This record gives sequence, C-alpha cells and structure tokens, in this order.
Amino acid sequence: MKHPASLPLLTLTLAALPAALPAADDARAIHERLITFDTHLDTPANFSKPGWDIMDRHSYETDRSQVDYPRMVQGGLDGGFWAIFTAQGPRTPEGLAAARDKALMRGVEIREMVAKHSDKFELAFDAADAARIHAAGKRVVYMSVENSYPIGKDISLIQTFYTLGVRMMSPAHTSNNDLADSATDTNGSEWQGLSPLGKEFVAECNPLGIILGASHSADSVFDQMLELSKTPLILSHSGPKGANNHPRNIDDERIKQLAAKGGVIQINSLSGYLIPQPVIPERNAALAQLYVKFGLPAPQARGAGGAGGGAAGGAGRGGRGGRGGSLEGAQRTAFMQAMGEIDEHYPLPQATFEDYMRHILYTLKLVGPEHVGFGADWDGGGGVEGMRDITGCPKITERLLKEGYTEKDLANMWSGNVIRLLKAAEDCAAKTKN
Amino acid sequence: MKHPASLPLLTLTLAALPAALPAADDARAIHERLITFDTHLDTPANFSKPGWDIMDRHSYETDRSQVDYPRMVQGGLDGGFWAIFTAQGPRTPEGLAAARDKALMRGVEIREMVAKHSDKFELAFDAADAARIHAAGKRVVYMSVENSYPIGKDISLIQTFYTLGVRMMSPAHTSNNDLADSATDTNGSEWQGLSPLGKEFVAECNPLGIILGASHSADSVFDQMLELSKTPLILSHSGPKGANNHPRNIDDERIKQLAAKGGVIQINSLSGYLIPQPVIPERNAALAQLYVKFGLPAPQARGAGGAGGGAAGGAGRGGRGGRGGSLEGAQRTAFMQAMGEIDEHYPLPQATFEDYMRHILYTLKLVGPEHVGFGADWDGGGGVEGMRDITGCPKITERLLKEGYTEKDLANMWSGNVIRLLKAAEDCAAKTKN
Repeated sequence: MKHPASLPLLTLTLAALPAALPAADDARAIHERLITFDTHLDTPANFSKPGWDIMDRHSYETDRSQVDYPRMVQGGLDGGFWAIFTAQGPRTPEGLAAARDKALMRGVEIREMVAKHSDKFELAFDAADAARIHAAGKRVVYMSVENSYPIGKDISLIQTFYTLGVRMMSPAHTSNNDLADSATDTNGSEWQGLSPLGKEFVAECNPLGIILGASHSADSVFDQMLELSKTPLILSHSGPKGANNHPRNIDDERIKQLAAKGGVIQINSLSGYLIPQPVIPERNAALAQLYVKFGLPAPQARGAGGAGGGAAGGAGRGGRGGRGGSLEGAQRTAFMQAMGEIDEHYPLPQATFEDYMRHILYTLKLVGPEHVGFGADWDGGGGVEGMRDITGCPKITERLLKEGYTEKDLANMWSGNVIRLLKAAEDCAAKTKN
Repeated sequence: MKHPASLPLLTLTLAALPAALPAADDARAIHERLITFDTHLDTPANFSKPGWDIMDRHSYETDRSQVDYPRMVQGGLDGGFWAIFTAQGPRTPEGLAAARDKALMRGVEIREMVAKHSDKFELAFDAADAARIHAAGKRVVYMSVENSYPIGKDISLIQTFYTLGVRMMSPAHTSNNDLADSATDTNGSEWQGLSPLGKEFVAECNPLGIILGASHSADSVFDQMLELSKTPLILSHSGPKGANNHPRNIDDERIKQLAAKGGVIQINSLSGYLIPQPVIPERNAALAQLYVKFGLPAPQARGAGGAGGGAAGGAGRGGRGGRGGSLEGAQRTAFMQAMGEIDEHYPLPQATFEDYMRHILYTLKLVGPEHVGFGADWDGGGGVEGMRDITGCPKITERLLKEGYTEKDLANMWSGNVIRLLKAAEDCAAKTKN
C-alpha cells in the first residue's frame, strides 16, 4: 500500500528477467513445446521380437528396451531418425544379398509399425514434415540406414532405400566394408578412407537429398566425406574425443571443421564411449565364449583383450556390434540376458548422467548449440546411470537451461539442426534436378 | 391325420435327397462355408491412390474399382493372391532398377494395408495359413508377382520377394522380357520360350517354395516351365482357347497337360479374352492418342490395328497392359476415365456372366474341378455384364451347384486347388533344404 505505483513496474521487470535457474516444471513446459528428436533410435530392432509392441510400456530393467510409445509420451520425445541397422557380415555375394534383404525388411517393419499405429506415428520424408506431424500430435518417424553394407556393390539400391523413405545414411559400422573404413576395425585401414565405391556412394546420396552420416566411420572417411559432400554432414551418434579418448569419438579439430561446414554432432550416451574402460581378461574370455555360443564374430570384444586394444576394448561392453547386433527375436533376448549376467559378474565402470552432460557441454563450448544435438543410441547400447531410457530426456533440457542455454538453443539442439541439414540435402537434390 | 406314421419316413427321405437345384440362400450358405480365393487380385494398384481406402465401400460405376473390404464381405470373398504388378518397361539398367523399386514398394503397400487393418486382414505365407486366418474371421492376403521384370538380371532378388512374402511368380506380362517370351508381344518370339535367365528363374523358385505361374507367357514358356518345374504350375488368370481363340487363352491339350501334372487354371473374366472382339480403326486411333497423351507405350492397342492383330486386338479394351498399368494415383484415375469415354464412343461387345460361366464350364468338362479355379482379374480389367465386381462371386457358386458340382468340388475350386499347389511348393522347398 505504500508504493502502489511501483508494483506494475516491478512485475514487468521480473517477467522480463531470464530465469537463470528455471524450476523443473518450467523446464518441462519448454521441453514439451520443443520438437524433440533423437537421431539414432535403434528401436526398430525390437519390432520383430515376438510379442513386443511399441504401444506397450516396457522397462529397461525387464527387457532392456529403452523406447516405446508410452515412454515417448512420458519423456517428451517426439521422434527422430529410426535406424535400419545391419550388422557387418560376409562381403560375399551371398552375404551382400542377405544384408540387402534384411535391411529392406527392417524398413518394411518400420513402415508396418507406422501403418498399424497411424493415429500415433507418421512417416516423415521432407524437412517440412517434422513440424506438420508434430502439430498433428503424432510422433515423427524419419528413417536412416546405419551401415550401408546392404547396398552391396549396387549403387542403384541407394535409390531403393530413398524410395522406402530413408533420408540419412552412413557408410560403415564396426568393421571395414566395401564402401569405407570403420573407426574400430581391429585390422586397421583397408581403403585409407572411402573406397572408390564409397566415393560413388557419397556422390549418389547428394542428388537424392540424403543426409550423409559419419558415425562409426574412420576419421579418414569423415575427412573425405567432409570434402566430397555438397551438403553438411551429421555424426548421428558420436562424442568428443576431448571428453573421452575413444576411437568412436572425434577430435576437437574435426568437430570444428564439421561445424564450419554447417554440420552437426549428436552426442552418444553409450557408457563405453563416455568414460575410460579397463581391460578385464576374465570378462573378455566370458564374452568370447558367449559369442561362440551364439555363432557371432566379435571383433570389438576380441580387440579388448588384444595388444593395443586399450580404451577401444570398452566397446565390448556397450557397442551394439558387441551386443548381438545380427541376432533377432528370442535369440537377441537370450543374448542380451547372458550379456547382462556377464555385466553383473565382471562389471565395467558405468557412465552417469553427469558424464553424458560433460560430453554435451564440452561439445557445446567447442562449437555452440547450432552444431550439437542428441543421438543417444537408444536401444543400441546407449543409456547411463540416471538416464536408462528416454523418460530421462527432459533432464537434458532442464540441465541445459540451468547452464544458461535458451529455449531457442534447445530448439536447435533437439531438432532444428538436423532439420536444417535435411533441408540443405533437399535443396541440393532440387538443384541437381534443375 | 390320415397317415401319421408315414410322416417321419417322408421327412427323412427328403432330407437325404441331394438338392439338384439348390435355392439361392442354400448356395449362399455353402459359399459362406467355403474358403474363397481369387488368385489374381490387382487391387493393390489402388492402394497408393490418394484418398482410396480399402475399408470404404466403392463402386465400379464411380471409380471402376472392384474389390474393397465391404464388397469382400458382401461377395463372400475371403482373400487370395494380391498381385505386385509391374508394367513391362525398358530393359535398361535404369529401367530394371526402377521396376525393382516399384515392385518392392507395391509389396510394402500391401503389407502396410494389412498392418493398418490387422483386425480384418492377415498376411499369409504358408499353405496352412489359409484355414487358420479364415477361422479367425480375417481376410487372407497371399502375395504374388505378376511380371518378374523387377528382378532384372539378379536372380537373388527372387529371395527378396520371397522374404517380403511372395509365394507365386510369373515371368512375363504383355511383352517379352529378359526372362521369357510373352503370349502377346507383337514382335513375336525372342527366346523361343524361357531365356537362359528364365530357366534360372524357374530353378530358383522351386527350392524357395514359390508357385510358378504362366499366365501372360507364351505357350512355349508354358511348355518349358511344365517340363522344368518340380511342382505343379498355375495359370492364375487365363482361359481356354476352346471357348474363345485369343492368345491369352490356352489350348485344350496344354490344359490337359497342366492338369496331368497336378496344376490348375484359374478362369479369367476379362471381356476381351472371353468373346471375339472386332477391330474398330477409329477406336484404335483414339486409344493411340490417349496413350501418347499419358506417355505410355501401347503394344496391344497397336497390335489391334495391325496386320494379323485379329482377335488379339481386343485386348486393347480390357487388358491391363492397355489400361495404363504403369500409371499411379490421380494419373491412373484420369486415364481410366478417358478410357471409359472411349469405351462409350466406340463400344466393344461386352462379355456377360454367361460368357464367363461358359469358359468355366468348358474347362471343368475338360479337366474337372481339381484343376480349375477363379482368377477373374479384378481391378486389372476383369468383370463382365452381370458381375462387375466381387459382389457377384456368390453367383458363380450358385450356378456351379446348379450344374451339379458338389460343395467339395467348390471347395477345391475356390481355394483347395491353389492351396494344394502351395503345399506342393512348400514340400519341394523342404526337400531341397534336407
């Protein structure tokens, strides 16, 4: 009552002040407003599991899964790039044909999931689809190809995957293939980067409007793709070597080059890439036995115990190459359970949510929020203590707001950046056609 | 009241008598009990039409469609083989790649339709699936490939289509291709039957468990497939030359050979194949103009006006090769409308339900009900006066009962025969694996 005239001014001033430390419910409101994408969802690997339904609520504790519709709602995750993942197999005509068929069917399974639940999900093909589908209250399903081994030696199959809906492709996975060197092949470089076919691959993706991804590829492949691609690259699920020196992470200089060309790095939450991992010979022996039992090659697990394996050995814990990537259905479940037992007997240090944030903040300081996003490798080995599944996504938003990043920054990180890359790829395609 | 004791005896006698002329409602009850398949449903060509939904009721009069879920219920049609049809195009690497992609996507569209309406439809892969799905009250969706041009020169793509769900494949359509000669290519024979690749095609389908189909193929192809195939052949939508001398129909001797080897002919209801068609030069000129307007090649229509075109010219009316087979969506609708106008201006004689029955009865007399069925070319040019869509299916049952065929005969014709062929293909595949 003493200074009634000053009240409106005070109110105005408070409202205009940026909230340095927003309350969790404010952060949640912001998180809900954003279009939130993860750029590497390995969830489609679960679609063929008997009885597994994306509309049911699962838990990491019971079936190790990390993404389903109820948890997307709870975690405020609007969608992203759903991966057609193919484990690297034999580079024989039979191996290539089998990989092609498996990848096509994984794509079919993604489309069947969307068709079956068309009230909740929608396929996205163009950059503009993201906002439209989000506004309609549905989850956004872009498709990506992790490991382009399925195209074999037939470049025309890139068009096939594009027609199926794929808008992001990366050449290799944990081993070298006919297109490119991997960052983690224990035999070292085969092509000194991209093979001649791999260069054709890059040249073919550009005019189609496919974003090129370099996660899992050797640094030399990254360098050559950065040079050759007419549109910005993505590292759809990678981290900074500066925060943990692992071959699946990338050095500061390359992250800066990526950003300088308009690209984006989407930070991975896979524990083995976030913190140093010791070599435990007994663990590696148990893993080797497990792989033999399931008839799997285990390049990374083998590397772990071998000379010079070093930090790379940690990938034996979490890398999907080391998680029975080529197994399906009940076999995959059995393998994951046995893997869980080995984890219990010979535990490796587990990265925490703070480790994940350390990687995110490190990269943000390096190149800023227009070049960083999230590709946490959900259902592909990602997840940390304190964020075991996508219900933890709002914590990332909350924490980054506390660190002073704005809603606009978050909008870029959660989807704006990758949509910008898709738009650039589309524009390149349109220009090629004209 | 005079002879009360004789009443029970009389009742018993009447009940035991076979109904020589069953009432329509009895026939309908029998029709409902049977598992009823058509082995050549071209309906998937409608799936990509904007706004076209299989759950809506359409009519032949309004959109020329002949199959949808409400009409399947009304017509008591339980399912069948849903075709992945690809119009013959250029035999260049680009043409082959485009055909492969188009056919794969048509397969994807079939699977999406089933996923979207999984309470009403179910994909069928094995012979045993038919009864199981029918008992569950759903419509049965086997997949077939009409024209194997999409496999190009890559035999391994047969496995791809098998994995996608295809259980029946025919090598050619209205023109010769890299696999085989067509029955209607105006240039005549190119391979004197199957090409060397076509022989590989036959050898590859057998161990996979795919039924081989010879509709649209030249007689020489039929002869060679009959010789080479380890399991009985199907003519999924063909007719007897003895009832109308058209190159798309087949002669008595070959029908008998087909039956002797356990095979089956599924009678087509396409008007141009059922009755002789006159050559109308003005009509052919209008058709030629229409094809130019839509950028289509028109091999059959051209043949109609040419020397020696004869009866084959009639295919310009109804054959799907002459119905804008390669057109999609709105373009297809526009083409069909324009085609309808030409039909109005220059009408061809229209076959009737009686003509269709004449073809069926002719073939039944030749080889019996274990070797005859129905492949009416719905949504691919089939349909006659008095049976314009699948709501007419019960009339076939009613009429055949009147002709003295039994419920068991009808069960074979409507699905038992083709399921027998699929079982034979499966057994061959199992034997190959052992």
